[in-house]
Amino acid sequence: MKDRDKKSCHIRFEPSGLKVAVPEGATVLDAARKAEVYIGSICGGDGYCGKCKVAINDGQFRTKTTTLLTQQEVRENVVLACQTTILSDMTITIPKSHTLETSQILTGIDASRFRDLAGESDAKAFTYSPLVQKVYLELKAPTVEDHTADHERLNVAIQNHMSTDVSVLQMGYRIMQELPKILKEADYKVTATIGFRAGAVEIVQIEPGDKSKINYGVAVDLGTTTVVAQLEDLNSFETIDTEATYNSQINFGEDYIRRIMYGEQNDAFDELQQSIVKDVNDLIVTLAERNQISLKDITAVICAGNTAMTHFLLNLDSTRIRREPYVASASFIPPIRAAEAGIQINNRGLLYCLPSVAAYVGGDIVAGVLATQANSYEGVSLFVDIGTNGEVVLGNRDWMMCASSSAGPAFEGGGVKNGMRASNGAIEKLWITDDGEIKYKTVGNAHPIGICGSGLLDTIAELFKAEVIDRTGKFQVANDKRLTEGNEGIEFVLVKSEGEHKEIAITQADIDNLIRSKAGVFACIKVLMDMTQITVGDLNAVFLAGGFGNYLNIEQAVTVGMLPDVDMEKIHFVGNTSIAGAKMVLLSRGAQAEAKEIATSMTYSDLMTHPDYMDEFIKAKFLPHTDMSLFPSATSSEFGVRSSETTRPSGD
Amino acid sequence: MKDRDKKSCHIRFEPSGLKVAVPEGATVLDAARKAEVYIGSICGGDGYCGKCKVAINDGQFRTKTTTLLTQQEVRENVVLACQTTILSDMTITIPKSHTLETSQILTGIDASRFRDLAGESDAKAFTYSPLVQKVYLELKAPTVEDHTADHERLNVAIQNHMSTDVSVLQMGYRIMQELPKILKEADYKVTATIGFRAGAVEIVQIEPGDKSKINYGVAVDLGTTTVVAQLEDLNSFETIDTEATYNSQINFGEDYIRRIMYGEQNDAFDELQQSIVKDVNDLIVTLAERNQISLKDITAVICAGNTAMTHFLLNLDSTRIRREPYVASASFIPPIRAAEAGIQINNRGLLYCLPSVAAYVGGDIVAGVLATQANSYEGVSLFVDIGTNGEVVLGNRDWMMCASSSAGPAFEGGGVKNGMRASNGAIEKLWITDDGEIKYKTVGNAHPIGICGSGLLDTIAELFKAEVIDRTGKFQVANDKRLTEGNEGIEFVLVKSEGEHKEIAITQADIDNLIRSKAGVFACIKVLMDMTQITVGDLNAVFLAGGFGNYLNIEQAVTVGMLPDVDMEKIHFVGNTSIAGAKMVLLSRGAQAEAKEIATSMTYSDLMTHPDYMDEFIKAKFLPHTDMSLFPSATSSEFGVRSSETTRPSGD
Repeated sequence: MKDRDKKSCHIRFEPSGLKVAVPEGATVLDAARKAEVYIGSICGGDGYCGKCKVAINDGQFRTKTTTLLTQQEVRENVVLACQTTILSDMTITIPKSHTLETSQILTGIDASRFRDLAGESDAKAFTYSPLVQKVYLELKAPTVEDHTADHERLNVAIQNHMSTDVSVLQMGYRIMQELPKILKEADYKVTATIGFRAGAVEIVQIEPGDKSKINYGVAVDLGTTTVVAQLEDLNSFETIDTEATYNSQINFGEDYIRRIMYGEQNDAFDELQQSIVKDVNDLIVTLAERNQISLKDITAVICAGNTAMTHFLLNLDSTRIRREPYVASASFIPPIRAAEAGIQINNRGLLYCLPSVAAYVGGDIVAGVLATQANSYEGVSLFVDIGTNGEVVLGNRDWMMCASSSAGPAFEGGGVKNGMRASNGAIEKLWITDDGEIKYKTVGNAHPIGICGSGLLDTIAELFKAEVIDRTGKFQVANDKRLTEGNEGIEFVLVKSEGEHKEIAITQADIDNLIRSKAGVFACIKVLMDMTQITVGDLNAVFLAGGFGNYLNIEQAVTVGMLPDVDMEKIHFVGNTSIAGAKMVLLSRGAQAEAKEIATSMTYSDLMTHPDYMDEFIKAKFLPHTDMSLFPSATSSEFGVRSSETTRPSGD
Repeated sequence: MKDRDKKSCHIRFEPSGLKVAVPEGATVLDAARKAEVYIGSICGGDGYCGKCKVAINDGQFRTKTTTLLTQQEVRENVVLACQTTILSDMTITIPKSHTLETSQILTGIDASRFRDLAGESDAKAFTYSPLVQKVYLELKAPTVEDHTADHERLNVAIQNHMSTDVSVLQMGYRIMQELPKILKEADYKVTATIGFRAGAVEIVQIEPGDKSKINYGVAVDLGTTTVVAQLEDLNSFETIDTEATYNSQINFGEDYIRRIMYGEQNDAFDELQQSIVKDVNDLIVTLAERNQISLKDITAVICAGNTAMTHFLLNLDSTRIRREPYVASASFIPPIRAAEAGIQINNRGLLYCLPSVAAYVGGDIVAGVLATQANSYEGVSLFVDIGTNGEVVLGNRDWMMCASSSAGPAFEGGGVKNGMRASNGAIEKLWITDDGEIKYKTVGNAHPIGICGSGLLDTIAELFKAEVIDRTGKFQVANDKRLTEGNEGIEFVLVKSEGEHKEIAITQADIDNLIRSKAGVFACIKVLMDMTQITVGDLNAVFLAGGFGNYLNIEQAVTVGMLPDVDMEKIHFVGNTSIAGAKMVLLSRGAQAEAKEIATSMTYSDLMTHPDYMDEFIKAKFLPHTDMSLFPSATSSEFGVRSSETTRPSGD
C-alpha cells in the first residue's frame, strides 16, 4: 500500500470503522472509494453537487472554500469530500445520510478477489445491511404537547434513522411490554435491534444506551462431515474467529442418505436434529467464550448446508430426499427465530439457512456461487465444490446448470485410514523427490498425525507420478519395496511411526475411495459440459471449493483428472465458499436476495438418471482418464512437474 | 325493494351468500351491484371486455351470444353478467377471479345505513378481506419433473390464489415442519389459514381438506364496565351470536384510573390482565359452546376498547395514562398472536386491538367513527359515545377533533342503585302518564329487576317533566307523596316490590350521578364546538353511541341536556359502535387501514386543562342547562312530548 514518493496517511472512517491507507494529497473522496465506504456524489468529484459532505474528526487537511456548506457546517468541520485533500492520518465521519442502509458498500468478503480472478470487474458489490442490525437512537421524552406513545415514538425514530425498506415495523409482544420501562430507565436513549424476516421488519430487542457496536453473527458451513463456524463482527465486517468440528451425525451414517435411512428406521429425526444443533451450539459457545462475547450479543446465525443437512438442522421431513420424486420439504426457508430450532444465541435472534436448488444441490452451493459471483460473469465458469458430495455448477450471468455426484467424504478425510480434516498436524502438502524421498508440510508445522484433503490429492498425484500406482490406481507389482503389508492389506507408508506417533500410510482402499470421488466429480463436470456444449476452451474460470486445507496444489487436481485440463491460471482454489457465502448473507440483505435469485435461476440436472453419467464415471476412474485426449497436458513434458507457487491462500 | 310493475326475483350470490331482490329483466351485473357483490368489468356493461363472467347455478335467464366465452364455459353455464337478464329467482356463482381479495365489497355492516342517515351516499365501502382468511387449495403432487419443495409449492399456490398483497409469505416454523405430513395425508388438498400481520402475511395453519367455510372471528367491545363479544362467521359476514358480561376488573375500581392506581399500589397489573383476559375468554367459550364451534376454528379476535382497557388486556404499562404527560405505551399495536396474551382461540390465531388516539380517546371511539363513517362526510357530524367515559368526536372528512370526559358508568347502570346493563329484566323504556302512573317496558318483557341506560335517561327526563325533580336534579319538596324514605335516603319508587321481586327505585345520589354524567358529556361537546366555531345549526348529524339498551328515546337525551338541541331527525342512536367497528375490522383489512387512518388524523383536545371546561360542566349540571337559550325546544310547546316512534334499533 505504501507509496514510495509520498507519505502514506491512514484514514479511519466512522461509524463503519473501515480503514484505508492513501498517499498524502489524495482526496477524502478517493480514500472513501478505496475503503469502499460509500459517499453520495452526483457531480463525480467536481465540487458542485454538494452531496459528498463528511465531517473531519481529526487530522490535517486542505479544503477549498465553497458556498455549498453552511457556517454551522464549517464550524463543525464538515467538508466536501471531493474538495478536500488529505495531509495526515485522519478520522472522518460519514453522516447518516450516506452511511445508512443504502449506503456502505460491502467489499463482498473475497468476492472482489474472485472477480479479479475471473478477469471481470463489473460484478455487483453488496450494500452493508445485515440480517439483524442494531441502531442507537436518542429519542425525545414525551411531553404534554408531544404525547406520542412509546411504541410509535420508537417506530418513527427507527424509520427516520433507517430511511429505507422499513415502512412497517413489527414489535414482539414481550418487547412492547418491556419498552416503557427500558425507555424510562435509559432516559429514552436506547439501541434497537432490528431483524429482517421475510416481508417483515421487526424490533427484536431494545437495550438501554448505545450498544450498536456490540452486534455479532455466526456464519456456519453445515457440512455433512465437517461443520465450520465463523464469528463475525456485524459492525466491522471482520471475521473474529473460526472453529470447526466433525459433524457428530457421522454416528448415524457417513453420508446423508444413510442418515435419512437411520432416521426413518429408528424414528430418530429428533435425534438427528439434536445432534447437529448441538454441534452448532458447541461451535458458537466455543467462539463466544474464546472471544469473551455474550451469547445474547450474537443476533444472527446463517447456515449454508446441503439440502439434507438443512432439513436435519430444522427437523423438516427429509425422507423424500432419497426417494422419487426427490422432493425437499422447503427450499426457500424464511429466517426463523434461532431459539425455535434450539440454536442458543440471543433469545430473539434469527436463524437463516441459504436456499437450496434441489434435493441434491443445497444452500452450500448457492453460497459458493454467491461468494465467487460465478453467476455474474460474462464468460462461462465452472464451480466445483468437493465435500462429502461433489457439486458442480456451470454457467455465466445468463444461465446456470448444476448437478451433484455422491463423491463421498474421501477428500475430507472420511473413509480414508489416516484421513483427517485440515487441523493441526494434518499433512497438507506432500511430494516425492526424484530420489523417492517423501517430503511433506503439516498444518501448524506440527508432527504429522494424518492427511487432509490437499495432502490426499498430492498423495494420489505423487504416487501416480512416481509409478507406485498405475492408471487404475492399483499398487504396482507386489515386489515394490516401497509397499508394506499393513493390518488393512498392502499400504504405502508416508510417515513412519516415531515414538508415540503412529505411522501414516495410505491403503489400496483409500486410493480407490479417492479415485471414485474424483471420478464422480469429473463425470459430473463432463456430462454438464456435454449437455451445454461447453468445451474446455470455453471455460473462463474454474473455481475449486472445499475444505481441502489452507493450500491446494491446483495442478494436482488436473493431474489426477478431477478437474478438466484448462490453463492453470484459470483454475482458482477458493477454499470454503460455503462459509464465505454465508458470511456475505449475514452482512448484506442484498447478498441474501441474490442467494435467492441464484437458487431460483439455477437449473438442476439429475445425473443419476442421465444415460451418460455412469459411462463417464467409469471412464473417469483412471488417472487422469481413459480418454487421454481430454488431458493433453498429461502427455506434454510439463505435466506433473510440481509448481508449489501456483497454490494460493484459501478464502480465510 | 319490491317493484310493483315487475316480478321480483331473488338472487343469491355464491360463495358470499349475499342475497338481493331485483325486478325481472334486470341484468346479473345490476343485481351484483345492488347486492354489493363485486364483479370486474372494464367496458362498463357493454359486453366487449369479457371481464364479468359468472356461472349460473340455477334459475331462468336470457343471455346474448358472445365470442368471449369458450365452448367449455358455455357448457358450464358461464355467462357475461352484463349481457344476461334475470327471469326468475337465481343462484349465481362469482368465480374466484372476482371474489378473492380485491373483490367482494363488504356492505360495511351498518355503515350504509349510517351513510343514509347522514344524507350522504358516497362514503367508502370496504373490501371483504378478513384479518385471518382461509383458502382451499388443490395442489399438484410433486413429480420428478416438478420437484418444487412443499413449502414453495404451497406458497406459490396461495400467491396465485390470492392474487394481491401476498408477495411475501411467512410460514411458522412448526407449520413448516408439519406441512409435508399434512400434504401427503390430504393428497395435497388442504386449507391454508392466512393471517395478515403488520407488514407480514403468514400461513397460520394448514388443515387437510376443504375447511375454508369453517372460519370464525370474535369482535369484542372492551368496555370499562361491560364487555360485549360477538361471534362472527368470517365467510357469511353474519353475526352468529352475542354475549356480554360485566368487566370483572370492577373489583379493582369502577373507572380505569382507579384500576391503574390499584395496579400500581398492589403491583397487580398481571392480575388486572388476567381478570379481563378471563372475561374475554369466558365470553368466547360461551359463544363457541352455545354455537357448537370449536375454539380452534376461531382464528381472530378484534378488540375495541379505551386506551387503558387495551393496556390492561395486553399488560402494557398504563401508569402514565393517569399522569402527565398522559402517554400511552402503544397506540398502534400490530396484530399479535392471541395466545401470547392468553386469549384462548386457535393457537396461532391473531388478536388485534383497534388503535387509540390518545390516553383518553381509545380504539372504541376509533371503532365508532369507523362504523358511522363520520370521518367521510362532507357535513359536520358529532359522534358521542356514552360509556364509563363520555367521548366526543366532532368533524367531517377534512378534520376531526375529539375529547373525553370522565362521565362515569351511570348510564351503564354503574353507581346507580338499581342500575344494570341492558339484559333480561332491565327497564329500557319508562314514562309517567299525565295521571302520574309509571309505565315501562323491560328487555325480554321480563319482570323488571333493574334499569339500564335508556331507562335511566327516560327516568331523569320523566321525573323532570313530572316536576319530581327540579332543574338542579334535586327532589322537590319533602312532602311530595311520590317520594319515600329508602335505606339510602329519599327515593322515587319506579316499581314496587312484588313477592320475591324487590322494589326498583331511584335515589338522589343516582340522579346526581346521572346528571354529572350528562353534564360532563355536554360540556365536552360544547367546548369542542366552541373551539371549532361549529354551531348547533352547522351539525349535519349527531350519532349517539353506547350500551344504553336496544332502544333509546333520542328526544330524552336532548330533554336532559346531554345532546345539543338539534332537529330530532338529525340525531341517531347508533348503539354499540365499538363492537360494530371491531366487526368491520375483523372482516376487512381495508377497514383496519381506515381505523389507523382515523386514529392518526384525529386531533385530541385535553379538556381537563382547558380553561372553559369546568365552567361549561357546572353550567351543564342543570336540566337541561343553565343557559336555556341553548335549548330553544325546551321552551317550545313541543318539548318534552314523548315520541316513542323516533327510537330506532341499535347496531345489532
